Amino acid sequence: MLMKIHDKFIDKLDFVKRNGFIPVVVQDIKTKDILMLAYANRIAIENTVRTGNAWFWSISRNKLWMKGEQSGNVQPVRKILLDCDSDAILYMVDSDKPACHTGNRSCFHNMLE
Amino acid sequence: MLMKIHDKFIDKLDFVKRNGFIPVVVQDIKTKDILMLAYANRIAIENTVRTGNAWFWSISRNKLWMKGEQSGNVQPVRKILLDCDSDAILYMVDSDKPACHTGNRSCFHNMLE
Repeated sequence: MLMKIHDKFIDKLDFVKRNGFIPVVVQDIKTKDILMLAYANRIAIENTVRTGNAWFWSISRNKLWMKGEQSGNVQPVRKILLDCDSDAILYMVDSDKPACHTGNRSCFHNMLE
Repeated sequence: MLMKIHDKFIDKLDFVKRNGFIPVVVQDIKTKDILMLAYANRIAIENTVRTGNAWFWSISRNKLWMKGEQSGNVQPVRKILLDCDSDAILYMVDSDKPACHTGNRSCFHNMLE
């Protein structure tokens, strides 16, 4: 499903609103846990569609990156969803590896007590 | 749990990185569906903690808003989680009402086909 670039879908996205990148929520497709939040620009989403793995744009490092390019914890993307005002997307991924650089399964592991 | 303002938690958040607001993922605590993505500033999070309902900052309207203030579809917040680099948060809400202004349960209802 993700092997073809879907320009119409990507054209809908509102990259202008947030200076060329949009937030991406990453959710485990099996457990529905939220794993991380990162950002993508158009090329990151095209790479995700083309390769089937999650790509992002790092605002702090000002570069494209593939999740797992260093750690090996790649995130195969099974579904991509767009929100109602086209300025946020959701990658539903099929991976049971740690998503967080701390080794935690999810980046959202600190609770308000 | 949410009736007291937890300044230490809020002080950890990195509001500077994105011009004073941070992205908030809203997840249904029961079904784990992702309902929406919006933004919050410090006051929005304080209001959420104080009232127990989800508050946000609207970047386009440049104002604080409580989810459901117009529609009645308020979102009681049961847990608030902070991500590893303190620049994104997660509201886990207990509400079965539509989260989207279109009447859909989730704002993420458009799939890449």
